[in-house]
Amino acid sequence: MKLNCDLGESFGLWKMGLDAQVMPHINLANIACGFHASDPLTMSKTLTLAKQHQVSIGAHPAYPDLVGFGRRSMACSSEELQALITYQVGALQALAVAQGLTLSYVKPHGALYNDMMKDIKVFADICQAISRYNNKLTLMIQALPDTRQFQEIADSYGITLWFEAFADRNYQDNGLLVPRSQANAVITEPKAVLARCQTLLEHGHLLSENDKAIEMQVDTLCVHGDNPSAVDLVVELSTLINGHSQNHSAE
Amino acid sequence: MKLNCDLGESFGLWKMGLDAQVMPHINLANIACGFHASDPLTMSKTLTLAKQHQVSIGAHPAYPDLVGFGRRSMACSSEELQALITYQVGALQALAVAQGLTLSYVKPHGALYNDMMKDIKVFADICQAISRYNNKLTLMIQALPDTRQFQEIADSYGITLWFEAFADRNYQDNGLLVPRSQANAVITEPKAVLARCQTLLEHGHLLSENDKAIEMQVDTLCVHGDNPSAVDLVVELSTLINGHSQNHSAE
Amino acid sequence: MKLNCDLGESFGLWKMGLDAQVMPHINLANIACGFHASDPLTMSKTLTLAKQHQVSIGAHPAYPDLVGFGRRSMACSSEELQALITYQVGALQALAVAQGLTLSYVKPHGALYNDMMKDIKVFADICQAISRYNNKLTLMIQALPDTRQFQEIADSYGITLWFEAFADRNYQDNGLLVPRSQANAVITEPKAVLARCQTLLEHGHLLSENDKAIEMQVDTLCVHGDNPSAVDLVVELSTLINGHSQNHSAE
Amino acid sequence: MKLNCDLGESFGLWKMGLDAQVMPHINLANIACGFHASDPLTMSKTLTLAKQHQVSIGAHPAYPDLVGFGRRSMACSSEELQALITYQVGALQALAVAQGLTLSYVKPHGALYNDMMKDIKVFADICQAISRYNNKLTLMIQALPDTRQFQEIADSYGITLWFEAFADRNYQDNGLLVPRSQANAVITEPKAVLARCQTLLEHGHLLSENDKAIEMQVDTLCVHGDNPSAVDLVVELSTLINGHSQNHSAE
Repeated sequence: MKLNCDLGESFGLWKMGLDAQVMPHINLANIACGFHASDPLTMSKTLTLAKQHQVSIGAHPAYPDLVGFGRRSMACSSEELQALITYQVGALQALAVAQGLTLSYVKPHGALYNDMMKDIKVFADICQAISRYNNKLTLMIQALPDTRQFQEIADSYGITLWFEAFADRNYQDNGLLVPRSQANAVITEPKAVLARCQTLLEHGHLLSENDKAIEMQVDTLCVHGDNPSAVDLVVELSTLINGHSQNHSAE
Repeated sequence: MKLNCDLGESFGLWKMGLDAQVMPHINLANIACGFHASDPLTMSKTLTLAKQHQVSIGAHPAYPDLVGFGRRSMACSSEELQALITYQVGALQALAVAQGLTLSYVKPHGALYNDMMKDIKVFADICQAISRYNNKLTLMIQALPDTRQFQEIADSYGITLWFEAFADRNYQDNGLLVPRSQANAVITEPKAVLARCQTLLEHGHLLSENDKAIEMQVDTLCVHGDNPSAVDLVVELSTLINGHSQNHSAE
Repeated sequence: MKLNCDLGESFGLWKMGLDAQVMPHINLANIACGFHASDPLTMSKTLTLAKQHQVSIGAHPAYPDLVGFGRRSMACSSEELQALITYQVGALQALAVAQGLTLSYVKPHGALYNDMMKDIKVFADICQAISRYNNKLTLMIQALPDTRQFQEIADSYGITLWFEAFADRNYQDNGLLVPRSQANAVITEPKAVLARCQTLLEHGHLLSENDKAIEMQVDTLCVHGDNPSAVDLVVELSTLINGHSQNHSAE
Repeated sequence: MKLNCDLGESFGLWKMGLDAQVMPHINLANIACGFHASDPLTMSKTLTLAKQHQVSIGAHPAYPDLVGFGRRSMACSSEELQALITYQVGALQALAVAQGLTLSYVKPHGALYNDMMKDIKVFADICQAISRYNNKLTLMIQALPDTRQFQEIADSYGITLWFEAFADRNYQDNGLLVPRSQANAVITEPKAVLARCQTLLEHGHLLSENDKAIEMQVDTLCVHGDNPSAVDLVVELSTLINGHSQNHSAE
């Protein structure tokens, strides 16, 4: 089980996220590419930090909306959407290569991520953009009980998918997220997050808000590094996963 | 003798340059990368046009200044400068790869070009940025009578240089451009441009404003495609060069 | 009957619109404010041109999306929406005051205009933003057969409305625009545009695509100045209106 | 003696500065206008905070360079410079008016401030821009032993000047700032800042790095609110000034 985290989201003089604290404890760094956050220098520094901690790097492309942090949908033609994804992925890849690194994957950001999960056409555009550039890049999307529709399209473009669950979000019995409009959408108690992760590690499934086992493939857990207690939780999750992994490999 | 031209300088809905008319007649397309002009979709379309006409493509990176069209110098640290060049080159390279193309060279734009020619530190930063990313990319700079200082630095980074002269600019006897403050800075008469090009092709040197032969290496001529008469001149230059090339190869 | 036209939509070095040709023939200049197009210098020059021709000036605020020309909807909170309208209107007003001018009205641009007509909450936000800044500014919206809902809200904020029809668009019998998806959405024949305008001037109503009289208040006609034939039509419309106005005042 | 502070420098989701903590203790809020920092919504919220604490508000216009935070000089024509100042001042003024406030002054930011103090032509452009818009706006510039050149130009435009000293910067005997390249450029010891302020209040002059009295007009002290100890110092300075003011008025 890998931990992924959005980072490299500073911009110019503005700082965001405790990247230096969280980087040592994650496996996959989703790095902003300058459209919703970051700038070339910040991207370069973020890559240096990922390199120091041997963290795999992924591009985190977004709609072109700095002031809105890429959180609002923006209508794009297929051609425009593909171009802006390729542009951002390529920009990060070049900065990675300059440090002897290479990208492993792509995870769309914010509204683009949401649009990809809601609109299969957007998902197909993203797959096509990646495949035209480099189909060895994995695409990270939301874990769902039924991913066949996504899988078929990804297969047709030769794209591998990774499925992520959100460590601190509650799930409905049907495997969909509890909507943010509901009080229990976010799990605020670190112990509850850790317990759920433990179940996932030991039994291979997430527990829903009603403690029902949800059958779905989860390759990675999304965690946050934007405040000290979030980082504390990442450290504990990392410890839990490493412990499990050692026990498991000792068996 | 190759003709190079800045193009792909539209932005969103705003059109600039007669790209479709000039592309068939040039050899090297200097393509804007989104910082002084262009956007991902425009870059993609420009690459398609270059592909149709089998024109070699180069990245045309710039300072981040759309409203100023990259024409004013902006103080950058070495680290920032290198990052913004790598970012732009990588973004264009990815869009090129998506169309089965690959970049051949880099030509800095506007104020960045001027700063590179005036400040050897900026030139060294650009060389280093390119070498860290891909030292097979050639760097295009201004032809000068004495390029040793540039050549030594480029050699130290394993970077090949191409030297360009400006087809429509007058040169002083010392091989430097006649400053734009002087009345004869620009050669406005197409025949004069063609005559000078003819001399360059036949005798291997430019003529100065005083018709003195300037000894300097010229690999490519910079031409313009921003208005109909500029395009007419490019067509004539192209015809002249192709005719010379055929005669020459027939000898 | 006043003619209004979107202009001042150049940006930096990129030119758009035949402002100098169209300005002498219109009454109301909808001037871009830097968010979908224009920049402070372009705004200043556009105001100078409006002043030369004694054209009333209106702010043409938009969503913050230069690359998309303000043509795609962007989710904004009420507070954000009001702030970005006030910002743009105030910026233009200051540049106008610097030339001894003052704004007369506000006409939202592109997707913001469409959102205003579709979502009464957006309309109310725009009214509130204007009223908090300067309720002497008129708000220009689309003419509709039934404008009561808009009128009530505008009244509650002390805002006067102007209703515009589109000179070159066909209308359904119900007074709504023929959707752009239909072949006859746009009236391409100048004579048909002029004939419809004549009816409007003489009888006070628009004719629908089926030549049915549409009863709705039309204070101004929206025209275009982005190409030579559009400008020709504006000149003819202007001549027609002035002729009618002189005949009418002579009666 | 008034305290002025740069604030409202957040941008979108990125936070900068402890505005809520520092606002109650200052007299003059220099509010960013969206070109080097801030956005319409942030400006609006900053104005609300200033209103709560009855702090006078000033526009803090800058070169258009978000990623560089307005800290690098950008070549502008007079016309462009004036337009971008007027644009920013007008945008903030409109947002202020919407809250029943009005601007009192203008203080250029960063590189624009430095250019204004080094290049009298830039200063004259700023004066002219202000005078054309509203010559009741005061212009804040750096206190200098000899301000005659600035004063004459300001007078010619009917502009009042305020002179600011920097609370935490050392001054040379000649009244110029100790350059940042020198170790003692910044006064890091709060007590030393307070002592110097005390001298200014009691004797009407600043002390240089060599404790020599500098004769120059100081209307306001520039303080910082970007970290907790800076805010602590502002609170102490405010207390010191208020105490002096009460003693003084009681005499």
